[in-house]
Amino acid sequence: MIYLDYSATTPLSLEVQDTINKVTREFIGNANSLNSLGQKSSELMKSATNQIAKIFLCDENEITYTSGATESNNIALIGTCLANQKRGKHIIVSKLEHPSIYAICDYLKTLGFEISYVNNKEDGLIDFDDLKRLIKPSTILVSIVAVNSELGIRQPLKMIRQTIKKVNPNTYFHSDMTQALGKVSISLKDVDMASMSIHKIYGPKGIGIFYKANNVKVNPLLYGSGKSNPLHPGTPALPLIVGASKAIRLATDDLDRKYSYIEKLNNKLVNFFNEFDGIKVNNTEYSIPNMLNISLLNIRPETFIHAMDEHEVYLSTTTACSSGESSSSVMALYNDEKRSSHTIRISLSSLTTNDEINKFIEIFREEYNKLNNLTNK
Amino acid sequence: MIYLDYSATTPLSLEVQDTINKVTREFIGNANSLNSLGQKSSELMKSATNQIAKIFLCDENEITYTSGATESNNIALIGTCLANQKRGKHIIVSKLEHPSIYAICDYLKTLGFEISYVNNKEDGLIDFDDLKRLIKPSTILVSIVAVNSELGIRQPLKMIRQTIKKVNPNTYFHSDMTQALGKVSISLKDVDMASMSIHKIYGPKGIGIFYKANNVKVNPLLYGSGKSNPLHPGTPALPLIVGASKAIRLATDDLDRKYSYIEKLNNKLVNFFNEFDGIKVNNTEYSIPNMLNISLLNIRPETFIHAMDEHEVYLSTTTACSSGESSSSVMALYNDEKRSSHTIRISLSSLTTNDEINKFIEIFREEYNKLNNLTNK
Repeated sequence: MIYLDYSATTPLSLEVQDTINKVTREFIGNANSLNSLGQKSSELMKSATNQIAKIFLCDENEITYTSGATESNNIALIGTCLANQKRGKHIIVSKLEHPSIYAICDYLKTLGFEISYVNNKEDGLIDFDDLKRLIKPSTILVSIVAVNSELGIRQPLKMIRQTIKKVNPNTYFHSDMTQALGKVSISLKDVDMASMSIHKIYGPKGIGIFYKANNVKVNPLLYGSGKSNPLHPGTPALPLIVGASKAIRLATDDLDRKYSYIEKLNNKLVNFFNEFDGIKVNNTEYSIPNMLNISLLNIRPETFIHAMDEHEVYLSTTTACSSGESSSSVMALYNDEKRSSHTIRISLSSLTTNDEINKFIEIFREEYNKLNNLTNK
Repeated sequence: MIYLDYSATTPLSLEVQDTINKVTREFIGNANSLNSLGQKSSELMKSATNQIAKIFLCDENEITYTSGATESNNIALIGTCLANQKRGKHIIVSKLEHPSIYAICDYLKTLGFEISYVNNKEDGLIDFDDLKRLIKPSTILVSIVAVNSELGIRQPLKMIRQTIKKVNPNTYFHSDMTQALGKVSISLKDVDMASMSIHKIYGPKGIGIFYKANNVKVNPLLYGSGKSNPLHPGTPALPLIVGASKAIRLATDDLDRKYSYIEKLNNKLVNFFNEFDGIKVNNTEYSIPNMLNISLLNIRPETFIHAMDEHEVYLSTTTACSSGESSSSVMALYNDEKRSSHTIRISLSSLTTNDEINKFIEIFREEYNKLNNLTNK
């Protein structure tokens, strides 16, 4: 098996799985219980949060555990809009967001919020002039993805934040950091809010992080009891929380080495794809190497995915969350319908071996030539 | 260690843990991914849902996986109110609900909804006359807990549903079944919506069920992509979902035998507590035996919990989610401030042994007499 869909989800690290199993066995108390088993669980939760806060250089109470990045994005957008609508009802997002952000924006429109979609240049970077032009006194939030989930475009968050605050110091800046965490270094000082997913960094499914700087006002979306995690009430999922803390520590460790290694694999693939006239590489100089997005101009991407499946090579078309549709991200960069409806996403990991890439190239060449010849007949 | 806080949370069943670990290792694809690993995950998810639907005799698409019963309660109340407010802005809840229901009601009040709190009799059962009186043409929802989390009062859901529908056939009926599942038999035909928690039935933390009959209209609280679980979008937490399905199967198996066994343990404890003048047993004939609630009139419950802790005996005061406050449920039954501010909850399981109960009685007698004498000096 050659798994090249790491941007959709990652296998759970054995080390994290061991941690989860250990916590499950040894910390059976409800972290909201008054007895000492409950207190022991509550203390473990605090120490997990403390570890995360140390890694991200933030306060412990700025961390909320959610059920995943989708819930985090919901709190960031809906929670901010509901809490700050007296100041204005305008928000700005980029054209390179995860589909969940657009689904949330569509809901916010029904509540009377106005959404602007900031342009990007052909290299994928946000168009700063357009951003400045769009920010109004009523703009309460700008949300821009740190690393796009299809092309891996990495945005300069610090510059974006500075630009926003210069035009309107009251506008909050949120970033969906799902595809950035564990791949590039991130600083929470560059944002007011952030969303993170744990199953994308070799951690468990069913948990995410919502970061909110202490001065930011958001309304909760869920109401309940238990004070340990106020924006996501209920019994804390302690094994997942401690697993998340461990996964974050492992994922943010040794980033530079992992990055250079993946970059080499990526370069090898780009050189290979450049051999073919019918293949367009969609990545730009601002793409991180973990994702390689190509368009097979003469082959339906679903057909190609299934052909590769037969060899136990696992790829995606667009993001997992918008399977089967055309790529809005590729459209945002190249404004080319054919190119954006023919995309394949190959996502790499530091677990990917040179051997796997060599085998992938071999299988790819075989299947591509077969299907391409069929089309050209 | 003698763990008697099973109503707060339960240890994960080894069998369920094995299932979770197996799914984690063998099903690494994202259930929303197009490739065959993703499809394999998606099929496993469907078969887990199918198993749950068979147990509950409902449709597969009536099951939503949430992050826990708190989220389920939020969808049931807020989701119903938002979707049906044109028909009316009145809802009714009992005085024996879990604290999360009251937190949600407080939020709904800020949106202009009117909340009525239906009375119960001293035996804990809903006052049917009061319920009938409260239902108006504008009543869109009645929410009544199936089994109360402090006194274990079990409500006759079928009769409640019939009563509601007789007065207003358009009023939906939701029940928080968190403390009923795996303890008594439940029928989803008795309700329009139900909330369930998995960590209370020896399953994993971080997952719950929201049941909604197909004809019921609710608005989502979270927006996103991925069609497999529309009211809780995002990447499905496959290991937790399959673990939940297994936990439900195990918990709903052999219910009668478990119930009689626990009943015997409970009777033994009640006989023991009846020895003491300063102890009031708060359970009624409608309490299920899994929970035994007593008031230690002369001892602060926190003091007693901590004294028992020293012997590694783990109890609760009220529910885990309202630690430290006085019991609203005991107040609702007995209207006695002292009695409701001195409660101890002892919760039993089919895992509890006779030996544990005997040892508990011994330790309890020792600590009770010690602390009671201190108070009386």
